[in-house]
Amino acid sequence: MKICLIGAGRIGIVHAIAIASEQNATLHSVVDVNQEAADSLAKKYSAEVLTIDEAFSNADIDAYIIASSTATHADLIEKCSQVGKPVFCEKPIDLSLDRAESCAKSVEQSGIVCMLGFNRRFDPNMASLKNKLDSNLIGSIQSLVITSHDPSPPSMEYIRSSGGLFHDMMIHDFDMACWLLNDLPESIYVSARANDKDIKREGDVDTASVIMNMKKGSIVTILNGRQAAFGYDQRIEAFGESGMLQVKNELEDKVVLSNADGINHAKAQHFFLERYEKAYHNELLHFMESYHLGVKPSVNIEDGVLALRIAEAAQRSLKSGLPENL
Amino acid sequence: MKICLIGAGRIGIVHAIAIASEQNATLHSVVDVNQEAADSLAKKYSAEVLTIDEAFSNADIDAYIIASSTATHADLIEKCSQVGKPVFCEKPIDLSLDRAESCAKSVEQSGIVCMLGFNRRFDPNMASLKNKLDSNLIGSIQSLVITSHDPSPPSMEYIRSSGGLFHDMMIHDFDMACWLLNDLPESIYVSARANDKDIKREGDVDTASVIMNMKKGSIVTILNGRQAAFGYDQRIEAFGESGMLQVKNELEDKVVLSNADGINHAKAQHFFLERYEKAYHNELLHFMESYHLGVKPSVNIEDGVLALRIAEAAQRSLKSGLPENL
Amino acid sequence: MKICLIGAGRIGIVHAIAIASEQNATLHSVVDVNQEAADSLAKKYSAEVLTIDEAFSNADIDAYIIASSTATHADLIEKCSQVGKPVFCEKPIDLSLDRAESCAKSVEQSGIVCMLGFNRRFDPNMASLKNKLDSNLIGSIQSLVITSHDPSPPSMEYIRSSGGLFHDMMIHDFDMACWLLNDLPESIYVSARANDKDIKREGDVDTASVIMNMKKGSIVTILNGRQAAFGYDQRIEAFGESGMLQVKNELEDKVVLSNADGINHAKAQHFFLERYEKAYHNELLHFMESYHLGVKPSVNIEDGVLALRIAEAAQRSLKSGLPENL
Amino acid sequence: MKICLIGAGRIGIVHAIAIASEQNATLHSVVDVNQEAADSLAKKYSAEVLTIDEAFSNADIDAYIIASSTATHADLIEKCSQVGKPVFCEKPIDLSLDRAESCAKSVEQSGIVCMLGFNRRFDPNMASLKNKLDSNLIGSIQSLVITSHDPSPPSMEYIRSSGGLFHDMMIHDFDMACWLLNDLPESIYVSARANDKDIKREGDVDTASVIMNMKKGSIVTILNGRQAAFGYDQRIEAFGESGMLQVKNELEDKVVLSNADGINHAKAQHFFLERYEKAYHNELLHFMESYHLGVKPSVNIEDGVLALRIAEAAQRSLKSGLPENL
Repeated sequence: MKICLIGAGRIGIVHAIAIASEQNATLHSVVDVNQEAADSLAKKYSAEVLTIDEAFSNADIDAYIIASSTATHADLIEKCSQVGKPVFCEKPIDLSLDRAESCAKSVEQSGIVCMLGFNRRFDPNMASLKNKLDSNLIGSIQSLVITSHDPSPPSMEYIRSSGGLFHDMMIHDFDMACWLLNDLPESIYVSARANDKDIKREGDVDTASVIMNMKKGSIVTILNGRQAAFGYDQRIEAFGESGMLQVKNELEDKVVLSNADGINHAKAQHFFLERYEKAYHNELLHFMESYHLGVKPSVNIEDGVLALRIAEAAQRSLKSGLPENL
Repeated sequence: MKICLIGAGRIGIVHAIAIASEQNATLHSVVDVNQEAADSLAKKYSAEVLTIDEAFSNADIDAYIIASSTATHADLIEKCSQVGKPVFCEKPIDLSLDRAESCAKSVEQSGIVCMLGFNRRFDPNMASLKNKLDSNLIGSIQSLVITSHDPSPPSMEYIRSSGGLFHDMMIHDFDMACWLLNDLPESIYVSARANDKDIKREGDVDTASVIMNMKKGSIVTILNGRQAAFGYDQRIEAFGESGMLQVKNELEDKVVLSNADGINHAKAQHFFLERYEKAYHNELLHFMESYHLGVKPSVNIEDGVLALRIAEAAQRSLKSGLPENL
Repeated sequence: MKICLIGAGRIGIVHAIAIASEQNATLHSVVDVNQEAADSLAKKYSAEVLTIDEAFSNADIDAYIIASSTATHADLIEKCSQVGKPVFCEKPIDLSLDRAESCAKSVEQSGIVCMLGFNRRFDPNMASLKNKLDSNLIGSIQSLVITSHDPSPPSMEYIRSSGGLFHDMMIHDFDMACWLLNDLPESIYVSARANDKDIKREGDVDTASVIMNMKKGSIVTILNGRQAAFGYDQRIEAFGESGMLQVKNELEDKVVLSNADGINHAKAQHFFLERYEKAYHNELLHFMESYHLGVKPSVNIEDGVLALRIAEAAQRSLKSGLPENL
Repeated sequence: MKICLIGAGRIGIVHAIAIASEQNATLHSVVDVNQEAADSLAKKYSAEVLTIDEAFSNADIDAYIIASSTATHADLIEKCSQVGKPVFCEKPIDLSLDRAESCAKSVEQSGIVCMLGFNRRFDPNMASLKNKLDSNLIGSIQSLVITSHDPSPPSMEYIRSSGGLFHDMMIHDFDMACWLLNDLPESIYVSARANDKDIKREGDVDTASVIMNMKKGSIVTILNGRQAAFGYDQRIEAFGESGMLQVKNELEDKVVLSNADGINHAKAQHFFLERYEKAYHNELLHFMESYHLGVKPSVNIEDGVLALRIAEAAQRSLKSGLPENL
């Protein structure tokens, strides 16, 4: 599977590493408006550097991975629809729900494999949780609590183009909730604040508690924050009628110091690149498998549209101070 | 300090045990409409059995502990006001906020020591958390999450007279939130369901997620459930600008079995009597200290009124499906 | 059960507290060469102060608890034999194995109940471990590892009269090993050092690793130290053919701080008085039960003699540098 | 760095994977008496298949990795000495100390880089422990306890050619102890048994407790077992004058199930290939670095000789039942 990677930034590099470690995948080419970034990555993995136009007219390319800025996602997905080749795209499809929906239509009409980058689904811990929930290990789920704290806020430049906490960060948790419960929200209520002055100035929030009433009766609670002194905090608790399942944080190491100050364990792994390293690899494997079998991936463009729809409702609730229906 | 205990049921027995273990306190007498219960408890601790009228006309008695049914609390507190003697009363003051407020007025006018039984404040873990928060160990608190699950639902008889989940169970969490944060809620939003058919039939709920926006800016999230297969689940997480403080569950023991099925720790202690054994004792100590020094206890009737006010707003939100102001 | 307590020091106080909390036991009287200590304890629990002679001629006394200095134990036990009354005695019986054996003979001839103070057997965690081992939960035990560290070394005065690490501290672990495995050691090998200069000057050691080959085939490893910066360290690991059972430390509380320095739990409970508070109480209950039923307690003078025999062999191994047979 | 891999079995494959993931290393060729294994591995990584003679006469090869059977190690290392090229060899050098010493001499005379495969030193947890010990985080080390249990016994064929528990398994722990403490043992005492009948028939043992008295005064205790129902058990505890440092097991995942049976965590990772995956990679990086800088690796043939010397003393102690000097 010869892959053209569009976007040679932080996430693009992660994909390049995953491709390099796979026997049956090759990094064919790299596209980036930042010529230096494209050259550097291409050189490291013996790939070509292409322009966008070259990329979509090159017959050797089997599939595309889109890791460029959000604003380009929908257009690039539609180009893949036009050339009829499989595409893996980082979330979100677009900051506008309308644009995302029109893009999804193009995918549907073309029939291409279009996989969305909800990487957490491919984390071994999350996959194991999903598997245990589906096998009814704790009975029907009455309450699901998802906690996500980033280690520290992103740059203001990033914040400005991110679409806000709900479209950028909590969108993962919206997807997780629907996926884990095989369910959809009926309504969403948001309480959120900006504790960081810079984030406040941008009109965004950095701390949020959210409740979603799900159609089948579960209550979903999501806690988000842009900073956690102890690392990347990613936990889930599912309360069922016959037990609780939790995913706990991965710690930096297993060394424990016991002394007069207490019993000290390592911090949580510091960022998503470490915590979800395996997830990114498993994600690529699933994309390759979908391509080879020609089947819909388990996470596709409709999931991306759904998560956006919830993010928009969250934004409405933030403004109105009321629960909003979906 | 000669104590008259009104109510010889489950909680009454807990108080009797605490009194017996204290050198400077004596169980003077026991009052209960259930004659058998009163006799049995009085005999065990060499106390007298009195009627209510005798109890309030007996000059030997220094103080009263009220552990009778909720409906009697306000009347009994007012009798203590009338005789001008210190009283410790289990929560809630009354199921009606109005009645609780008039009762509080009588206490205020009489000037008696009136301590409310929010036992969790006296748990060594919670007290340590409070102490660490007040000392600014993790900076200002952005988010507080309180999780409380009972091991199994109470009897339907209990449910019927309990005033519902918010007045009976979550009232503890309302008090904890205000106490831990030294703050008051501006608004409250409730999502709740009855998963248990019997509880549903009674018009009550058994599972709830609640968000409170606090005046000083923290967001409080409370998760409650009437049953947890793994014991009495009582946890708190406070997220501050420079760290997180958690209170974790006390487990039944420290024996760990590692085998082909995994690494198995004991369940959480099964019920509040075990989990809060020390809390009940510390509570008594504080009541005795307030009595001896003649000062207001750290948790008094106003705290009880506040918690009830929040419970009423919660009930309103449950009905309206909207956030309710306080 | 009217109890005469001989010894009003640290351990004596622990026993007095346990007696006070038991409905069916009364602290009848206190004996101590330190008049002040005896007076103070007796006053607190409304008991009499007696001389040794009075104590053994008082017909009201039902049983004796010996918590005086080690050198007096054997004589006092023999006095109990002479008056034919039950006795609970703190370990060890004596520092000399010969003296302990002659004392045991007097007990045997008199037929009195004589219980030895191996308190750990009555700790709920250890009792649960024993129970699980006896029920064959992990199959036959191949290896047993006992770790015991005191929080800090005792006074040099204590060290001098203690009989040394093996007779004073590791004697508990010798008893635990035999009890947990229902087995006896064939041989013992000791490696030990004094890291503390004062302890070295006294000719004692403070750090030791010991291996015992047990008759039925298990290998027992014991690790001891006189100081641990993180509290009272008391752990056990039993490796069986189908799993491992561990007893972990009880921590001071369940509050966890997560910040840039890591994830910090409380230290282990600081001393044996906290860690074994319940054990002391359960021990008293068992003594009372043995007295009432007139049966041999589960831990009696023969167990004390056995533990001393092992401590003597340990001392021989320390000197010879070789494994010593028992 | 073009590497010739000698040995295409289980460990050989691990090295091939590590090489493939490194940009600056290439698997040049594979040698194995099992033609099929060599072909399969070579094909997967586009490498050549060579005979031993070809491997040592091929001028393109920069370095050798020896992952063949133990009996061939010393001869192959000497061939590397002869051709003057760097070699990485799996432990042990040989089962005979004499042979290992003569081999070490050839390495010394040739001056080649010769790194030994004590992989655990390169595990991030162990490396962090080492770092913390060297930085004096817990003061001088009084006691070091190393626990190693394999998940299940190897095949009898493996047992027969392994050289026994001490040469095959505990040799890692001997190396760890000397490395972590920067010290050497003065004497060693072994208690060991065969609980498995098949292993007993082979004259080997499967369960051992070992005490080593170290020159600088620490006591080292090593616990080994050939089977642990809960996975690959690899733990270390270092007790210092101001604290304890532990390395705990890596678990299979971070999913926790709490229900009526208790609180169940995942088992320890099942085998060394998972637990030490990163260690194997770091090991390769260190070998590459030693090659490029032309310096002695941090773990070299002398360390292999030392560990063998301790294993021989352990074997003597097992026979004599006495501590043996080194």
